[in-house]
Amino acid sequence: MSKVKVAINGYGTIGKRVADAVALQDDMEIVGVSKTRPNFEAFIARDKGYDIYAPSDRMDSMKKADLSVMGTVEDMIDVADVVVDCTPGGVGAENKSLYEKHGVKAIWQGGEDHELAGFSFNAVSNYSEALGRDFVRVVSCNTTGLCRVISPLDKEFGVKKVRVSLLRRSADPGDIKKGPINAIVPNPVKLPSHHGPDVKSVMPHINITTTAVKLPTTLMHVHIVNIDFEKDCTEKDIEEVLSRQSRVRFVGQGISSTAEIIELSRDMLRPRYDMWENCVWNESISLYEKELYFFQAIHQESNVIPENVDAIRAMMELEKDGEKSIEKTDKAIGLI
Amino acid sequence: MSKVKVAINGYGTIGKRVADAVALQDDMEIVGVSKTRPNFEAFIARDKGYDIYAPSDRMDSMKKADLSVMGTVEDMIDVADVVVDCTPGGVGAENKSLYEKHGVKAIWQGGEDHELAGFSFNAVSNYSEALGRDFVRVVSCNTTGLCRVISPLDKEFGVKKVRVSLLRRSADPGDIKKGPINAIVPNPVKLPSHHGPDVKSVMPHINITTTAVKLPTTLMHVHIVNIDFEKDCTEKDIEEVLSRQSRVRFVGQGISSTAEIIELSRDMLRPRYDMWENCVWNESISLYEKELYFFQAIHQESNVIPENVDAIRAMMELEKDGEKSIEKTDKAIGLI
Repeated sequence: MSKVKVAINGYGTIGKRVADAVALQDDMEIVGVSKTRPNFEAFIARDKGYDIYAPSDRMDSMKKADLSVMGTVEDMIDVADVVVDCTPGGVGAENKSLYEKHGVKAIWQGGEDHELAGFSFNAVSNYSEALGRDFVRVVSCNTTGLCRVISPLDKEFGVKKVRVSLLRRSADPGDIKKGPINAIVPNPVKLPSHHGPDVKSVMPHINITTTAVKLPTTLMHVHIVNIDFEKDCTEKDIEEVLSRQSRVRFVGQGISSTAEIIELSRDMLRPRYDMWENCVWNESISLYEKELYFFQAIHQESNVIPENVDAIRAMMELEKDGEKSIEKTDKAIGLI
Repeated sequence: MSKVKVAINGYGTIGKRVADAVALQDDMEIVGVSKTRPNFEAFIARDKGYDIYAPSDRMDSMKKADLSVMGTVEDMIDVADVVVDCTPGGVGAENKSLYEKHGVKAIWQGGEDHELAGFSFNAVSNYSEALGRDFVRVVSCNTTGLCRVISPLDKEFGVKKVRVSLLRRSADPGDIKKGPINAIVPNPVKLPSHHGPDVKSVMPHINITTTAVKLPTTLMHVHIVNIDFEKDCTEKDIEEVLSRQSRVRFVGQGISSTAEIIELSRDMLRPRYDMWENCVWNESISLYEKELYFFQAIHQESNVIPENVDAIRAMMELEKDGEKSIEKTDKAIGLI
């Protein structure tokens, strides 16, 4: 069987990681990645052997920088079965007509609105609903992290109400332009935050309220999760359900912060120290006055990567069973 | 009427501020402050005209540094009606027998256990219960900040349940020894945190659950507050109740973070840029699915200062009415 041809439109934080994850799968291949600027990421992409494409008005600047380009973004789309759009939030929407014109399937990231794709995806929550679709939106890192724990707990115990405080890293490690350096920024100030509705874009029946702040850190987000359940359950029950999720990792063993999680990932020699799994402090799992509380950390740069691979597999109907796709993806990238 | 004689045992972050606040009241005066080391704070205290005392085994090092000392800590206690113990958390407990021996009233800070004083104080919550007491504990900055909003809202609407995410600054601005620099630290990992029980030390009937993290910032704590009420109320009702609290300040006007609150305080020419009030983003006050949510920022170095003054006034029965003491304190320090 020939491999599914995947193009990456936008080779930045998410795009470069999706490219590498797709390249490791045996049922799909990268046919091209698009760059707008001839920066270090473009040269690394070339060194990896990816075919590089660029918008037509950027071809000259790429050539001037001695970076050979295979063609325009439209040329790249022509050779692809599915495009993973990893352009900056809001830009992806402008590409929809292009994908429609070329009759290619497309995946957008969480920075775009649900309405653009008409379907918001999370592998453990709604894989089967993505089968054969032309357009899918993989939800943001925060929403993905929430769906991965809410969905299995909901199936088991019935979720009555979820309340989450999202403590967000303000900038990625390589981003020297954003702040704050020394402040806590309620964001948005007007409550609740948009993250709750975004979880509902995947699981419309979940009653969830979220609040969010931006913090002077670059490494990971942290969620303080509070859930009321319909059914009685124990802390052991919760831990057991979460322990069955391949994309939930329990952390302890002296790990008391996001910094130590990243150090763990570096010691595991993960590519780019990526931590694809939700990191749940299992010691924090507490039922207090019948409500569940726990902490989890989310690596904003990498946790949606496995879901992008699964989305391709569902849309191309390479695998009908979500659990099997999840296992295949995770094994190929080295998550398990 | 002669002024009440107040001694400050421990002239650090809290002690130096309590000294200055007491010195501004017309019904009390500072008779001495104790220092253990002849550092810059000790010399500033001398320049302000405070009589300086030291533990007997530190007298020599103070004299060597050319800092004149009036006597030992015991000498200081002998000339005081009430001692405000601002020694580091845990150290204050060791001083109790000394205060008992000298028959002097004492106030401890939130770093000590409730049991040490047998009574935990917050001015708007339980002023009248402190009247005439010998020993009082002024609760921590976080607990004070919570009591100031929970107590009046409880009186008006009846609090059914409170859930708070406490986002804590990890170190004070002058502290170069503590971290983290770039991490989010769930602390404690085991939930819930001790802050809920600490609120109950003031208001035992309040049903409250708290979670806490430490953050790489020095300026202020932020609380994400969630409250279920017994009675129906509107956002306007909530705002109206909070607007009546002199120690709650609404922030807006382009203030989107703790850094900008501190900038406001600097522009107001507040001493040491102290922000004694809870800073509530009134735009954040939201009723969502019948639950209240809002953000407030707490200046950890200064928000318990007015309460220390009120505690002295209650213990010495200088004023029977809590509201009048609060007004008197606030006017004298320049809060209103």
